[in-house]
Amino acid sequence: MNNLLYEDALYVAKSAIESALPEIAVVRALENFRPEGKLYLVAVGKAAWRMAHAALNCLSVPICAGIVLTKYHHIEGELPGILCYEAGHPVPDENSYLGTQAILDMTANLTEKDTVLFLLSGGGSALFEKPLVSAEEMQDVTRQLLACGADITEINTLRKRLSAVKGGRFAAWCAPAQVHSLVLSDVLGDRLDMIASGPAVPDESTCAHALDIAARYQLSLSAQAQKLLMEETPKELPNTHSHIVGSVAILCDAAAQACRNRGYTPIILTDCLDCEAREAGRFLASILRSHAKTRKKLAFLAGGETVVHLRGSGLGGRNQELALSAAVGLQNLPHAAVISVGSDGTDGPTDAAGGYADGDTLDALKQSGIDVHAALKNNDAYHALRAINQLIITGPTGTNVNDIAIALLSP
Amino acid sequence: MNNLLYEDALYVAKSAIESALPEIAVVRALENFRPEGKLYLVAVGKAAWRMAHAALNCLSVPICAGIVLTKYHHIEGELPGILCYEAGHPVPDENSYLGTQAILDMTANLTEKDTVLFLLSGGGSALFEKPLVSAEEMQDVTRQLLACGADITEINTLRKRLSAVKGGRFAAWCAPAQVHSLVLSDVLGDRLDMIASGPAVPDESTCAHALDIAARYQLSLSAQAQKLLMEETPKELPNTHSHIVGSVAILCDAAAQACRNRGYTPIILTDCLDCEAREAGRFLASILRSHAKTRKKLAFLAGGETVVHLRGSGLGGRNQELALSAAVGLQNLPHAAVISVGSDGTDGPTDAAGGYADGDTLDALKQSGIDVHAALKNNDAYHALRAINQLIITGPTGTNVNDIAIALLSP
Repeated sequence: MNNLLYEDALYVAKSAIESALPEIAVVRALENFRPEGKLYLVAVGKAAWRMAHAALNCLSVPICAGIVLTKYHHIEGELPGILCYEAGHPVPDENSYLGTQAILDMTANLTEKDTVLFLLSGGGSALFEKPLVSAEEMQDVTRQLLACGADITEINTLRKRLSAVKGGRFAAWCAPAQVHSLVLSDVLGDRLDMIASGPAVPDESTCAHALDIAARYQLSLSAQAQKLLMEETPKELPNTHSHIVGSVAILCDAAAQACRNRGYTPIILTDCLDCEAREAGRFLASILRSHAKTRKKLAFLAGGETVVHLRGSGLGGRNQELALSAAVGLQNLPHAAVISVGSDGTDGPTDAAGGYADGDTLDALKQSGIDVHAALKNNDAYHALRAINQLIITGPTGTNVNDIAIALLSP
Repeated sequence: MNNLLYEDALYVAKSAIESALPEIAVVRALENFRPEGKLYLVAVGKAAWRMAHAALNCLSVPICAGIVLTKYHHIEGELPGILCYEAGHPVPDENSYLGTQAILDMTANLTEKDTVLFLLSGGGSALFEKPLVSAEEMQDVTRQLLACGADITEINTLRKRLSAVKGGRFAAWCAPAQVHSLVLSDVLGDRLDMIASGPAVPDESTCAHALDIAARYQLSLSAQAQKLLMEETPKELPNTHSHIVGSVAILCDAAAQACRNRGYTPIILTDCLDCEAREAGRFLASILRSHAKTRKKLAFLAGGETVVHLRGSGLGGRNQELALSAAVGLQNLPHAAVISVGSDGTDGPTDAAGGYADGDTLDALKQSGIDVHAALKNNDAYHALRAINQLIITGPTGTNVNDIAIALLSP
């Protein structure tokens, strides 16, 4: 292993993740936040507790009341002045509805002088929900749509209309109070209306869309649901503004800055990588091999969320598989390395966040008696990388803004 | 289809291919070529006739004698002062040995004042051969090595020692005459000793390597072959120098210049792309989608040779599959396009050189009743792209320096 490259790769990956930690992202966004009237805090999603905790530590004004609604086992302690709820994810349960109702009660009858600080993170879609039909029908409609091959935009167009809080309706409920949203995005492309189905952003879909989808897929709907499809979602919400405080784009920017700190010229290739993990690894290795001739310190960055098609019975994750596959293309190439990590610190069903590979990796594997092609075929990147101490293990980080792969050249 | 982007893409692809045509590449390299003594011309490979024809048109001195040795049906007419031979490819036949012997006879007994202009292109490995064992044993050794899972470097290490012309031996035969090689490379990475097994470059492999390989794979060899493995190949050839006149790197550079001509800032990602074609298409689409926000005219270039794992029964080629797959990632993205072409004008078993895709492609396919996912699953990019007139058809170009994919953004 090239120790210098390994150390640089680890530094860049960790710096990137740090920039997306709730503590850093929320504090950065609240620097100039000076609400005048009463301040209410609503935090929803898997990072809700951490975001609320960070906000409390830096707010210049006291909060009037606050609620955290997060996934089971994600509350890390009491927060002064805040009620904390845990609920079901990815499938909503009674506690989701209970917590959501508590939020709606707290934000009822606000005035135009009041402000709701709305902290939203991944998982909000299931956790924050008040169905306007029965919970059973909501689930049934989703099932019908999935069975017909409807895409996620079509599914959301319908679900927003069957919900009291999605498609901008939560912000409309809070009006005339100001809703100041800080969003940790786990959706590639950062479309605000896709993150938790956009409780606090104007909805672009229309009733005509919704009715068209219902007709096209011949959905079976209750009379109540049919009536709801004809009720429009908010198209303008002058009382809201949203700020993405953490996302894979920000992850890439932070990685680029960390690269500069170590003397690399960074090139951000993409922040929406979505191809097969092992092929992304080969592509990145071919980029390094081609640029090795230039003898420059370069860093190629690719953020996003690759996919793995499981064919074997091994253990691994998309980041580990990307790194192990890159090792093949990097064989015997000096001064080149690839690291790939999930910003949440969890890659696949393993205790690793990702993996590292360089020009020496294939030899190291061979010396450990591991055939890299067999390991890839069996989707067993975890055991291969573990054997040569090239897993990246961070533990859960408390954020989730997708993954980043960093390809370094240091001649 | 975005006509402006299509036109730019086609211009860039065709400009790149043009730079690698034998006529352009050979003439460019011979600009300052002024040999003093007698000049002999030897052209070997699939582009041999075209390279020789181009050289004759621009040489400032007459040739003393010359031989072209190429594949069947690749001679396009008579060339003054040149003997033309056609022979078997990819398996050598009697005509390969006949043509090779004619070249060896012509270049016997040269003096240090003489020069051999050696024009080498893809296919030279099979066409230019004089085995030092029987042709049957040569083939048998290759078969044994392939069956054992030996890699191409190992196979070549043995074959060079069983050949009178490979591993630098042709240049040694011509000594003390100068050997001036112009090479059209069809090998990723442009390793001169890999192109036709390096007839005119010093050989890096050793007898120790060769004996080790023979022992490791327990090869069955004749006494003559065993003796040959102990005869060293040339390690220094002061009478030669080689110049790569066409390669995928030059293809990328020419594409970059063509991009600049049209106002794009080019970024060469790699000149040794070797991953799965459809995943390369997705990666390139994600690069375009991510950079679309910057509102700059950008071009991302990737040269190399992707692979296709056939699972369906459709018709296509790696360049067509790359383009069709990119179409999925480009859906509804305005001002972005991907074109991918083979520089030889032939992609897979089709009459197309490659394909084109942009943000409108998926809608166009839908209107033609074509499901893009089904077409990809069936490896049927040819029929999908043909239906919407997005195949790129150039006819055979007369060169072969791998493929290039060009991803354009023109906001």
